[in-house]
Amino acid sequence: MRIVPLISLVLFILCLSNPVQGQENIGKKLADVRSPEVAANNTVTFNLVAPQAKEVYVLGNWLSADSPGGDKLRMTKNADGLWTAKQATMGRDLYLYNFLVDGVRINDPLNVYQIRDVSNVFNYFITNGAQAELYKTHAVPHGTLTKVWYPSAINHGERRMSIYTPPGYEGSKKSYPVLYLLHGMGGDEEAWPSLGRVTQIMDNLIAAGQIVPMIVVMPNGHTSNSAAPGNSEKGEYPVEFRTPDVGTGEMESNFMEIINFAEKHYRIKKGKKNRAIAGLSMGGSHTMVISATYANTFDYVGLFSAAYRLTDAANIAVYDNFDQNLLQQKKNGTALYWIGMGKTDFLYKTGETYRKKLDEIGMKYSYYESEGGHTWSNWRDYLVKFSGLLFRN
Amino acid sequence: MRIVPLISLVLFILCLSNPVQGQENIGKKLADVRSPEVAANNTVTFNLVAPQAKEVYVLGNWLSADSPGGDKLRMTKNADGLWTAKQATMGRDLYLYNFLVDGVRINDPLNVYQIRDVSNVFNYFITNGAQAELYKTHAVPHGTLTKVWYPSAINHGERRMSIYTPPGYEGSKKSYPVLYLLHGMGGDEEAWPSLGRVTQIMDNLIAAGQIVPMIVVMPNGHTSNSAAPGNSEKGEYPVEFRTPDVGTGEMESNFMEIINFAEKHYRIKKGKKNRAIAGLSMGGSHTMVISATYANTFDYVGLFSAAYRLTDAANIAVYDNFDQNLLQQKKNGTALYWIGMGKTDFLYKTGETYRKKLDEIGMKYSYYESEGGHTWSNWRDYLVKFSGLLFRN
Repeated sequence: MRIVPLISLVLFILCLSNPVQGQENIGKKLADVRSPEVAANNTVTFNLVAPQAKEVYVLGNWLSADSPGGDKLRMTKNADGLWTAKQATMGRDLYLYNFLVDGVRINDPLNVYQIRDVSNVFNYFITNGAQAELYKTHAVPHGTLTKVWYPSAINHGERRMSIYTPPGYEGSKKSYPVLYLLHGMGGDEEAWPSLGRVTQIMDNLIAAGQIVPMIVVMPNGHTSNSAAPGNSEKGEYPVEFRTPDVGTGEMESNFMEIINFAEKHYRIKKGKKNRAIAGLSMGGSHTMVISATYANTFDYVGLFSAAYRLTDAANIAVYDNFDQNLLQQKKNGTALYWIGMGKTDFLYKTGETYRKKLDEIGMKYSYYESEGGHTWSNWRDYLVKFSGLLFRN
Repeated sequence: MRIVPLISLVLFILCLSNPVQGQENIGKKLADVRSPEVAANNTVTFNLVAPQAKEVYVLGNWLSADSPGGDKLRMTKNADGLWTAKQATMGRDLYLYNFLVDGVRINDPLNVYQIRDVSNVFNYFITNGAQAELYKTHAVPHGTLTKVWYPSAINHGERRMSIYTPPGYEGSKKSYPVLYLLHGMGGDEEAWPSLGRVTQIMDNLIAAGQIVPMIVVMPNGHTSNSAAPGNSEKGEYPVEFRTPDVGTGEMESNFMEIINFAEKHYRIKKGKKNRAIAGLSMGGSHTMVISATYANTFDYVGLFSAAYRLTDAANIAVYDNFDQNLLQQKKNGTALYWIGMGKTDFLYKTGETYRKKLDEIGMKYSYYESEGGHTWSNWRDYLVKFSGLLFRN
């Protein structure tokens, strides 16, 4: 007996409302145009409907002054006001882009996939094949991504971190080794999960049997904020690139509170041989200082395009004692001290000098030199390479 | 002894790179202009630098054809090419908007805060005071948000859900009651955490002592996808509003797999009196069908702007048996059967008819009629009101 009239699905979908209410405007006419279109051969086509615009470009992180056509890809307009540009076969990676429309940098209105990087929001797409497949979600068992707050002496309150636990974590009583993975000066606890594609990389490498299943702890390395923009008590503040906390030593001096929280609340195997730490850029500096300060704590250390020493200020113990701590770390030994650097990285010389320092004290390390510079493309790749070497002892 | 040259922080920040590489372009000149600016009295100013544009509007979800000035807020240009519009004192809420620049709908390039709603990406801001404060992150103890995959018979694989655990969950052995919270036709497992501000609402209400600390389980109600766009094995597919799964009964028929997973892997108090379920729109229909199908499982039921019956197809047991299941649910009794509906909701009449049905069978319910329509503004408010009534028995 149906005494209540059916909701007509058609009525439901046709229901029109305010044009900026998506859920509420579920009948919005769908654009016939798509952007971007990634072809099987990784040629990528960009589209924008903008009949009144005069000049439109694609700004892409694969473009530079050396690219054919320069650092912007010019789009051309057809009679319907549709702007189009085709990028000939690209590499296998995750790429970021924006449009430049009559001088205004905008997101692609047809692509909902976006990542915030510092104070910019970029659209992204992932091409096909090889390395790029590691960055996609596939039909493999999936790990869990958690945003959790831990008590911290730094902010006299709580700080937020991201934690990846491997597939099967919920279903077992097993313990796992742990990788502490640190972001750069422009990042926060969202950086590795978003730009770094950590859950996809870990899921895919575990499924392929190429890494040991591990927990990945991704804290926030900026001690002036308790969490990523929009997630702290500062609310939706304007996001700018200010780093009052770089070089204070607070992150490095208080790292044990992160380890203690993680090891207390997650099933993490104890002991040095089950602990790895790695970081990019500023996080690389954090990594070298933390791993030297707690000189018998990490068996695996990864420096990705690492900075070295973020301050010259005196009386900051973790920096002032770095040389002697490093000697102690050398004496205690590590299973792997891994350094990755791009040939055109602006920190290349810094890395060179640091490796010389290691040579002088006779500290062993593995060195991987890649093409390219100070880019997430490299850091994702370094994570793939580094994680495959972990916990093999 | 400092044998390695210091990284100059100045050099580091001034390092210039590709204009679409944020982390990599950490020295990008910051705009002096901000947008939006929310004043203490909740007047909001929008800014866009677009010297070449001819006509610019704000499209906001607080605007309609009945608004003074209509459904678009006209921006005006000054001599520097800065477009500005001021919106007189607004309510206390989270608001969504876009800009319309010479006919192209774009995101505000100066506001990194964005939420995807179906196939649209909107900028958002939160005004000040009262209800709006519940939607912000404050310096109170924070719960944890987890994205976890559970095994499902529906997709012959895994499906993704979001889970909120209350502050202190990690630090104790305590068990908590649970709220299953379902999204609408245009949503997925990201909808309640993003548009619904669940972690902020729960954290703030728990801190204020206004709700019983609870776990909130937010599954994905679209069975044709295993996860939200960009998080499934479909990759970065074009997001459109297609709902091949609405009205199949799959979500409702398989709901026990969600309960079983949650109760097995999280510290959830067992039994009907510790279980609540609520949903908006399509999720409201799911809620009424699920709570009737498993007729002695939930003591608290919440219908937010609920649809009723998503299909007329025959031989779908959960729909065909709904009336008798509802009678059984009435007989078993509920502590709270709560219905919220907006006065101008396009489903208003549907709700009226459903309430009449409940009256006819003598089933008790609480009814809350709000201003407004089929909006997240109402659903956030309903969550606040409903959650305060839970687990009081």
